[in-house]
Amino acid sequence: MDYRARRQKAYEQATALGADALLITHVPDAFYLTGFTGSNAVVVLTKRGATLFTDGRYIVQAREEARGIRVVIAKKSALLEACAAVAAQNIKQCGFDSDHTTVAMLDAMRRAVPAPRRRSFFVKTPALVARIREVKQPEEIAKMQRSALLGCRLFDELLPDISPGMRESEVAAKLEYRARIAGASGMSFPTIVAAGPRSALPHGEASNARIPRRGFVVLDFGVILDGYCSDMTRTVYVGSIQRDEQAAYEAVLAAQENAVAAVRADVSCGDVDEAARSVLRREKLDRYFTHSTGHGVGIEIHEGPRIAARQQQRLVPGMVITIEPGIYIGGKFGIRIEDMVRVTEKGSEIMTPATKALITL
Amino acid sequence: MDYRARRQKAYEQATALGADALLITHVPDAFYLTGFTGSNAVVVLTKRGATLFTDGRYIVQAREEARGIRVVIAKKSALLEACAAVAAQNIKQCGFDSDHTTVAMLDAMRRAVPAPRRRSFFVKTPALVARIREVKQPEEIAKMQRSALLGCRLFDELLPDISPGMRESEVAAKLEYRARIAGASGMSFPTIVAAGPRSALPHGEASNARIPRRGFVVLDFGVILDGYCSDMTRTVYVGSIQRDEQAAYEAVLAAQENAVAAVRADVSCGDVDEAARSVLRREKLDRYFTHSTGHGVGIEIHEGPRIAARQQQRLVPGMVITIEPGIYIGGKFGIRIEDMVRVTEKGSEIMTPATKALITL
Repeated sequence: MDYRARRQKAYEQATALGADALLITHVPDAFYLTGFTGSNAVVVLTKRGATLFTDGRYIVQAREEARGIRVVIAKKSALLEACAAVAAQNIKQCGFDSDHTTVAMLDAMRRAVPAPRRRSFFVKTPALVARIREVKQPEEIAKMQRSALLGCRLFDELLPDISPGMRESEVAAKLEYRARIAGASGMSFPTIVAAGPRSALPHGEASNARIPRRGFVVLDFGVILDGYCSDMTRTVYVGSIQRDEQAAYEAVLAAQENAVAAVRADVSCGDVDEAARSVLRREKLDRYFTHSTGHGVGIEIHEGPRIAARQQQRLVPGMVITIEPGIYIGGKFGIRIEDMVRVTEKGSEIMTPATKALITL
Repeated sequence: MDYRARRQKAYEQATALGADALLITHVPDAFYLTGFTGSNAVVVLTKRGATLFTDGRYIVQAREEARGIRVVIAKKSALLEACAAVAAQNIKQCGFDSDHTTVAMLDAMRRAVPAPRRRSFFVKTPALVARIREVKQPEEIAKMQRSALLGCRLFDELLPDISPGMRESEVAAKLEYRARIAGASGMSFPTIVAAGPRSALPHGEASNARIPRRGFVVLDFGVILDGYCSDMTRTVYVGSIQRDEQAAYEAVLAAQENAVAAVRADVSCGDVDEAARSVLRREKLDRYFTHSTGHGVGIEIHEGPRIAARQQQRLVPGMVITIEPGIYIGGKFGIRIEDMVRVTEKGSEIMTPATKALITL
């Protein structure tokens, strides 16, 4: 990873907004710009270069991971020592990310700057690094592909284990165990295993409920491999499926495939969302599709762009997004199908090739 | 859990600060006040009662979990619809948590309020719910005790599995699998398994490194059971220990026990920290103790109070804190020992009774 080039890009964009320094307070952004994986990280970019501020827990780790930049071990607050350090230089205005700086943090940051310059010193540069991160570099795509393929492999290995009477949490436990053994540092988010009537909960985290003898099971999970998240959902059926359930599954699959087919550079995110929603509307199921179609994914599980109704933002080659329409019929059942899709120069490519044909167990 | 009483207390404290409404934007605070476990939750408290704002993923779940309060399913933004709703009432000033509201959120919140009232409508009420949450109620203590005891049981069951050549990540995988099967909804934080020289990393998350034939292994982990986090650390030794390593272990244990003994109501957090630090100073090991002594724990893994040098805040019966001194000698080894301790009327009680005598495997 060429961290220096990333920092240069961020710094140049900050200067284009009138700042001559940039303060990065969001830990995943700091990881993106330095490679440091600690949980406390503040990065300052100026024309003199980059400095990473962290705390005494990370003395060894910070110097090992964040090569080629200055590392400061803060005695009390990494944030406030970073602010004091930048204010001590000949800096006029320091950009900060208003999306990841709380009102209380900004108050404290201002107090770390000499009084006369306090009010005007910090300028908002919202989502500057987040927007850069939306477009993945080839090394990132390669890591994400490995992460996505591990997710698919784990899904395939999990299927023979799922049987009526088993708790959702046990299904999640087996999946997560194998993920760890396969090298994942953790899961991208709390694993969703939602069986039977619980499948109608779009965010049904694995509970102590048991897999019923008949019904859908929604499996939505991701692994973090080498710093990058995967995200996929498959819905399988236990027992013999009813005709209306089968029709509903096929409608969601058609919506999902229609949205995947709409993914290419220069298409608006709103149009991709509409590609999924219009199929469900035709089937009179759109009122059960109660969330947006997808989101960017990368170092974090939720990144830009948002694939939602009326979003004007246009897709760019290198973006990696999820396409995950679903329907949720309270008291009856739910179905969601999700792939990670990457926008290429020529169109798009599915990164999660696990089958989407209905699997009955 | 008497959610109504909690909301009443928060609302009264907000009115004492001059607000006639309180906006809660931090999800764990919303859980504390309503029982709702979704990942998107904004709560508004006014004299008319409480309203929970969430999104379409949680239609069923919100109504099931947040009993006795109004639930609004926001079409776009739970936060902005909450602000518009409160501004539409006869409210003069709405408190908000500046510790959990970003600068960008506050900008958007103000735009949701009619222009003439915009500037003065929101007033800072930092950490209001966080401070209430620092003192646990008996039902919370009971849940935390179960969570802590599960952690201890998992530690005991894990020990026979640890052997040279095994990867740290496999140790974590076995621990996390058993946690899930035992009913944990997840881990409190990324599991730390730091073996041999990696034990010198205070935050050495389980990696692909292998357990060496001789050396310390730091195990720092917690489970989330019924919404409450546990947190404990034990350091074991694989192989036959050297005399200097044994002496270092005993010094850390003495420091930890001295700090635990200092825990009681009305003692300052700084004095508890000093109780640990002074023992290590006497042994000339204090320069290797590079972090603070502990922190509050509860719904979140890190809550108030901070058990750190010079902290003036005084302990109160019902607080649950960690006591976790450690030493980290770069390139050689590290040792940390951590208990959860609750402050009682009469003194304190250790909630994590796993043995702290040196275990060699």
